[in-house]
Amino acid sequence: MNNFRFRNPVELLFGKGQIACLKQRVAAGTRVLMTYGGGSIKRNGVYDQVMAALSDCEVTEFGGIEANPDYATLMKAVEICRHQKIDLLLAVGGGSIIDGTKFIAAATCFESDPWQLLVGGAKVTRALPLATVLTLPATGSEMNCGAVISRRETQEKHSFGSELVFPRFSILDPEVVYSLPKRQITNGVVDIYAHTLEQYLTTANHTRVMDRWAEGLLQTLIEVAPRLLGEERSYDDCADYMITATMGLNGFIAMGVDEDWATHMIGHDLTALHGLDHGVTLAIVFPGVMHVMRREKEAKLLQYGERVWGIREGSTDERIDAAIRCTETFFESVGMKIHLSDYGIGEPTIRTIVERFRQRGWKLGEHGIVTLDKVEAILRHVM
Amino acid sequence: MNNFRFRNPVELLFGKGQIACLKQRVAAGTRVLMTYGGGSIKRNGVYDQVMAALSDCEVTEFGGIEANPDYATLMKAVEICRHQKIDLLLAVGGGSIIDGTKFIAAATCFESDPWQLLVGGAKVTRALPLATVLTLPATGSEMNCGAVISRRETQEKHSFGSELVFPRFSILDPEVVYSLPKRQITNGVVDIYAHTLEQYLTTANHTRVMDRWAEGLLQTLIEVAPRLLGEERSYDDCADYMITATMGLNGFIAMGVDEDWATHMIGHDLTALHGLDHGVTLAIVFPGVMHVMRREKEAKLLQYGERVWGIREGSTDERIDAAIRCTETFFESVGMKIHLSDYGIGEPTIRTIVERFRQRGWKLGEHGIVTLDKVEAILRHVM
Repeated sequence: MNNFRFRNPVELLFGKGQIACLKQRVAAGTRVLMTYGGGSIKRNGVYDQVMAALSDCEVTEFGGIEANPDYATLMKAVEICRHQKIDLLLAVGGGSIIDGTKFIAAATCFESDPWQLLVGGAKVTRALPLATVLTLPATGSEMNCGAVISRRETQEKHSFGSELVFPRFSILDPEVVYSLPKRQITNGVVDIYAHTLEQYLTTANHTRVMDRWAEGLLQTLIEVAPRLLGEERSYDDCADYMITATMGLNGFIAMGVDEDWATHMIGHDLTALHGLDHGVTLAIVFPGVMHVMRREKEAKLLQYGERVWGIREGSTDERIDAAIRCTETFFESVGMKIHLSDYGIGEPTIRTIVERFRQRGWKLGEHGIVTLDKVEAILRHVM
Repeated sequence: MNNFRFRNPVELLFGKGQIACLKQRVAAGTRVLMTYGGGSIKRNGVYDQVMAALSDCEVTEFGGIEANPDYATLMKAVEICRHQKIDLLLAVGGGSIIDGTKFIAAATCFESDPWQLLVGGAKVTRALPLATVLTLPATGSEMNCGAVISRRETQEKHSFGSELVFPRFSILDPEVVYSLPKRQITNGVVDIYAHTLEQYLTTANHTRVMDRWAEGLLQTLIEVAPRLLGEERSYDDCADYMITATMGLNGFIAMGVDEDWATHMIGHDLTALHGLDHGVTLAIVFPGVMHVMRREKEAKLLQYGERVWGIREGSTDERIDAAIRCTETFFESVGMKIHLSDYGIGEPTIRTIVERFRQRGWKLGEHGIVTLDKVEAILRHVM
């Protein structure tokens, strides 16, 4: 096991009717900037519940934060925070809203050009406090301190992180899952599955507990996904789905393990260049990573195949092929297309992405094993 | 899934050589009360590492805290804290030392009789900050906010809890496991196994993720225990063991589930009356709870048997009997005796314990299902 440091102070308020807890959590008179997206919260009742709970506060609304939140949009919220002396940011939405709100929290208190927080390696030293009401389980942002921000102007997508942008608390009411469109479930399932794999499909025999816990999240998704995509969603299925999303990226399965994240890095460029949903990019790229990195990840791929999919027969390569095929079939079963060509993406994009990674000089994958030629092979394999 | 609230702000510093981190974590000049037990830390090098790291602090030592820490002993430390204006408590030891130090932290700042914190339901409103260096994985106290305190004078054992006694940080160096006596491993394995069962062996189909995670801890213990009790202990086995202990009682597997804890409650009285090791009492009582509560816990016992022990054949009762037998055999395999008679305990103690519970009027088990007649049947079954 690797040495590690772990800390996650986020308070979860989980269950039916928890949004009403906002009343006790946010003192009367607090100046709140409530951030949200396209307005689905006005249709599903969450907006009304939040506003009722905050009736004693001074609430300013900032709607219209887009999926893959845009730097330019967020900077408008930063202006509001500075001028209105906002005390608390309340993100009501999914990962894009929460990520964007983390950036607003840090950028408001940052004295130089906030873009430096994303590309210049500038450190967050202060941030506004923030809390969340989760409406779309997927990214785990409600219980971590990272965020991914896009800049449409330059077709870039970058991440930042700081313990100062951990939400103070996050309210998770599984009832929000009832009304989610299938596309959101499809994207969410693949996103959570991919988060888990990024922290799991690396080094074998590293830590037994983290392996079992990651496998438990994958098994839960495999059980729950078809039920959520069927005719009726039960409360317990929604709750299992919501908790799986949060546990998939809050550090709980990352203790002492090597992490990969090459799929996410490659996927971010596909989103930046072509506007593909984040989940879509992961469904395309991950099977390619498994195929191309099969020697480096051999032991873990075999364990994954056996414990998650029950694959025990055949040669090493046959079992790995079967594990990859099960993964692809699972992604397809939730409604994903898993080839670049399904989205009209081909050779030019592959060349662009490889060139971008060449210029960045990043090390990708655990211990930098996903080299530039591997990136190219991965993308070519999933064309 | 039940509604739940979760928060665990403890920072873990896990791995080889982490004790040296104390130097960065504790500011020079801090008045530290270092609490420990019988002196094993002086033999295994931990004492020297801690003292070296705290060389710039004003360290007062308080050794001699016993297993099942005694109220009278702890009150002496409270006096020291008050008179020497201690800034930070540093518990260097296992669960008894850490539990005792949590009580010292709360009692020092409590203005009435501190015994009220244990039996009077008095609320902790202030506590000295505390941190830990774990030397004996078992109780999970290094990452939770509960504690169990004994009073030998009156043969009582009581628990208390407050978020104010969460450790600020806990240092977990698995190398401390190398030199642990087998008896400590035996007790620890059963303690961790029982903690996990208390949070797992209740209601079926409640939460898939917590079920998988609890099963993962049990599976890890079953794999690791014989290796730790064999000739040589590997670092990775020690690390897996240590992380399992912490994850077993830090709230991570308790989200949204019913909990039992009847075994612990009954076990506490066996310790209070006869001085049995905590782990010993759990190894005796848990198989009795499984046997007597087999109808109420039927679905979960079957799931436990199948997923943890691979039991898939036979009638319901045959499979439950097999699961209980596997549990007993596992406890015996790590060196436990599992009957009251092995310790010369018989009828009079059963009557005393049942009478104590009658007087307390507590509800035991999930939803109070472990009634007084069940307590009697459990103890009679394990005679």
